[in-house]
Amino acid sequence: MANWNDLDKLASYEELRSAKKVDLPQVMAGENGAERVKKYSVPMACNMSFNYAAKAVDEDILGLLKKLAQEAELSDKFKALYNGEVINTGEKRMVLHHLTRGQLGDDVVADGVNKREFYVNEQRRIAEFADKVHNGEIVNGKGEKFTTVVQIGIGGSDLGPRAMYLALEGWARKMGKFMMQAEFISNVDPDDATNVIKKVDLEHSLFILVSKSGTTLETLTNQAFVTDALKKAGLDPSKHMIAVTSETSPLAKSEDFLTAFYMDDYIGGRYSSTSGVGGAVLSLAFGPQTFAEFLEGAAEADRTAAETDPLKNAAMLDALIGFYERNILGYPATAVLPYSQALLRFPAHLQQLDMESNGKSVNRFGEPINYVTGPVIFGEPGTNGQHSFYQLLHQGTDIVPLQFVGFKKSQYENDVVIEGSTSIKKLCANVVAQIVAFACGKDDENPNKRFQGGRPSSIIIGESLDPRSLGALLAHFENKVMFQGFIWNVNSFDQEGVQLGKILAKRVLAHDTEGALAEYASIFEI
Amino acid sequence: MANWNDLDKLASYEELRSAKKVDLPQVMAGENGAERVKKYSVPMACNMSFNYAAKAVDEDILGLLKKLAQEAELSDKFKALYNGEVINTGEKRMVLHHLTRGQLGDDVVADGVNKREFYVNEQRRIAEFADKVHNGEIVNGKGEKFTTVVQIGIGGSDLGPRAMYLALEGWARKMGKFMMQAEFISNVDPDDATNVIKKVDLEHSLFILVSKSGTTLETLTNQAFVTDALKKAGLDPSKHMIAVTSETSPLAKSEDFLTAFYMDDYIGGRYSSTSGVGGAVLSLAFGPQTFAEFLEGAAEADRTAAETDPLKNAAMLDALIGFYERNILGYPATAVLPYSQALLRFPAHLQQLDMESNGKSVNRFGEPINYVTGPVIFGEPGTNGQHSFYQLLHQGTDIVPLQFVGFKKSQYENDVVIEGSTSIKKLCANVVAQIVAFACGKDDENPNKRFQGGRPSSIIIGESLDPRSLGALLAHFENKVMFQGFIWNVNSFDQEGVQLGKILAKRVLAHDTEGALAEYASIFEI
Repeated sequence: MANWNDLDKLASYEELRSAKKVDLPQVMAGENGAERVKKYSVPMACNMSFNYAAKAVDEDILGLLKKLAQEAELSDKFKALYNGEVINTGEKRMVLHHLTRGQLGDDVVADGVNKREFYVNEQRRIAEFADKVHNGEIVNGKGEKFTTVVQIGIGGSDLGPRAMYLALEGWARKMGKFMMQAEFISNVDPDDATNVIKKVDLEHSLFILVSKSGTTLETLTNQAFVTDALKKAGLDPSKHMIAVTSETSPLAKSEDFLTAFYMDDYIGGRYSSTSGVGGAVLSLAFGPQTFAEFLEGAAEADRTAAETDPLKNAAMLDALIGFYERNILGYPATAVLPYSQALLRFPAHLQQLDMESNGKSVNRFGEPINYVTGPVIFGEPGTNGQHSFYQLLHQGTDIVPLQFVGFKKSQYENDVVIEGSTSIKKLCANVVAQIVAFACGKDDENPNKRFQGGRPSSIIIGESLDPRSLGALLAHFENKVMFQGFIWNVNSFDQEGVQLGKILAKRVLAHDTEGALAEYASIFEI
Repeated sequence: MANWNDLDKLASYEELRSAKKVDLPQVMAGENGAERVKKYSVPMACNMSFNYAAKAVDEDILGLLKKLAQEAELSDKFKALYNGEVINTGEKRMVLHHLTRGQLGDDVVADGVNKREFYVNEQRRIAEFADKVHNGEIVNGKGEKFTTVVQIGIGGSDLGPRAMYLALEGWARKMGKFMMQAEFISNVDPDDATNVIKKVDLEHSLFILVSKSGTTLETLTNQAFVTDALKKAGLDPSKHMIAVTSETSPLAKSEDFLTAFYMDDYIGGRYSSTSGVGGAVLSLAFGPQTFAEFLEGAAEADRTAAETDPLKNAAMLDALIGFYERNILGYPATAVLPYSQALLRFPAHLQQLDMESNGKSVNRFGEPINYVTGPVIFGEPGTNGQHSFYQLLHQGTDIVPLQFVGFKKSQYENDVVIEGSTSIKKLCANVVAQIVAFACGKDDENPNKRFQGGRPSSIIIGESLDPRSLGALLAHFENKVMFQGFIWNVNSFDQEGVQLGKILAKRVLAHDTEGALAEYASIFEI
């Protein structure tokens, strides 16, 4: 059994606090900088690598981070998790999203079911369904093929699947794997559903209702919107809709759906992209084989995360460096900056993944903690961000650690040469330039043009963004967040912080309010 | 002439530092909370209001903020700005974006031209052009109408116009003002242009190339992409493209374009949505009248920003409270949370507007300053964010001040009743509930379900999101950022921090590298 201790009980934490800080502009200068770039790199799954040369670490700090990893028993905790221990202590649940894409350890049985088999079986059922939609066995009322798939879901049922869909759209178009256009409805704002319904061809659209509990108010409301619209168009809603839900939810085995696919309580929403929540929409959009490859990439990343030496385990090392920046260097936010337009919504997914998992003020036993936990996460793709908020990142008064992602090839490999270089070379040159500009800075006679440097970044480098590398990238960040949760000794798998707002919103709608709540409600004429 | 002093030279700043802090959960409880909601509200343009009841202020703090506004001469500085003083000291330029939508003070003449007349004339030229496109006077090579407009631009030429387009799309569809679909190409990543080109009907697409200098590398590269694609489709690029640029740029009066519309160096990119940069695409998409209404809303907000009493000037008060949270309470980030799906990219625009303007470490004279300036800005629309990063906002270890925006009506006014309420009522109930949940918190026996509260928020409340209210909302934030720049005594109108990366990227592409830069470049095989 692992020892679940608070961070400030670890001897290595104290040692890290008093360890000498690294002068980043100094160590990144000249040939020493070049040496760091060669040396401070860890191989990742799918031929990617995690380069942390521009992070404010050196051999001493890395040694202490390794010591902390051992003292915090990070590998043992991961092992306990994938072997089915009840890691989600608040809700008393196992945490099994890794099993949706592979099995790292023992068979995990819950409710009398081998969970790996259960997830594989659901993936197979989805694949069969998608194949039938694609080959015209499952069709609309007129016997015509469905051309569009619309996911109705919010939070984890929206952000991850949407980010993954956008990440693979260009790849799929290029590779001839683009089977169906996907759209997404998430917000309870009625304009969201109305806008999507106006845009799609309802007669050839298949809707996926995604809610684990089957009770998410936004999602049920949007289901009603779509059902209404289908009926008004003279269509039978039950022939245009499937569900992804848990077997015990009110949506399971309902006649309102063509069919239902199942997940369970051991997969949190923000960790559900590799379950049916991502599986249905991605298999329909790009084919089951594409989704299978995505899972293989994630499984490969999970295997590297099981490596016990943090210097060979990119997810663990990323977690350790992030903890060091947050708790020792005191930086409150982290920017995620993928140099890939296809990853335009990947930062929004990571924002949920990270902030919902580790934005906690009590440890896994519910006791208050005396140190900061999860940072604010934000980001946009480069080079767009360079023309936006990078000004503050370079010259603002706060230091914001950066996580770059870059690929050597574009998805379409369609390019033009302008001023002697292709666009993809310009893109790569920009991310390289930014790393060095942030780390090293530059002095100037004009103080307006002075760059202090000392702004740390890492970069994940891949060949190209395809289903496998995307799966690996996703799993890398899931595992990073998990390891940071272990370091902070918080429960990364519940989200009690979202409940109070829901309760108060219900009271407002029931006119059961007083004080400020009543007054605000009256301004909004509720 | 105004006195441009650093913040820490102001007596009121010291007074604010030692003033008693407000206990937000306490003052927002019970009837006192209800009183605050009634009292702490400032009317804004276009029938909107700024409610700051849930901010950690009271009469004492507000009195000191008012004193600081006077001591910092905020109103005089705004007056100097709109009367044409050289406020952008770094680049030695006037700051004239307010003149694109109205005139608050004296005639401003530059280069022998009355600038208000110049901007009005460009708006008129754009309106005439848009009318001709809409009524079929300007057509493609086959004599057919253009159906799609594609903006090619990055940073301020992309984020603002894109956010405004998305904000008005639903309104326009509902009101029968939807004239042309708009798409945007921004990133130098070749997949961005390729994806858009694959999706649009090139033969019926009109492209707008937007670059003030006419030298933005991303934009020229993407122009080449589009030109190539048009030629390959047997089309004449010069018949499918217009430019928005400055009169001195290489793009002005070029035969590559159907026509060009002009802006000038007195309008920064992030402040250019109300110039031709936003004007061309919005007038083509939704008609010149819609764009004119958008400008009227912005002009009305500008007039309220000229009010000298901060308690009657929402933009100034918003700026003062934000400064108080940043410099006195020490909060490093701010979340912008519009409860409107149509505002999905408004936070990304504000992220640029705010972080690029005030992410500075030297004052307007180039001298180092001893206090923090612009915070990290991020956000997503509600209710989506509730199912994502709100967990950290509620229960994380850091406090993040919040800026809500909400409207009483949806754009389409298409709705369903589920569980006794419409979606728009649910949306409004949620934002109301969140304000109170964040401010007041809630105790619980289970520490996992405990909410500390004390998390401050303001809300801008409007009737509905239409061109006028959108213009007012945009101008509110532009003016807020401007006032904060005055408080911090920084130059909010340059962006020298983006230059170093550009220089290094050019060196990488020229293979003129050494040390770490060379090593990273070799990993990317540049």
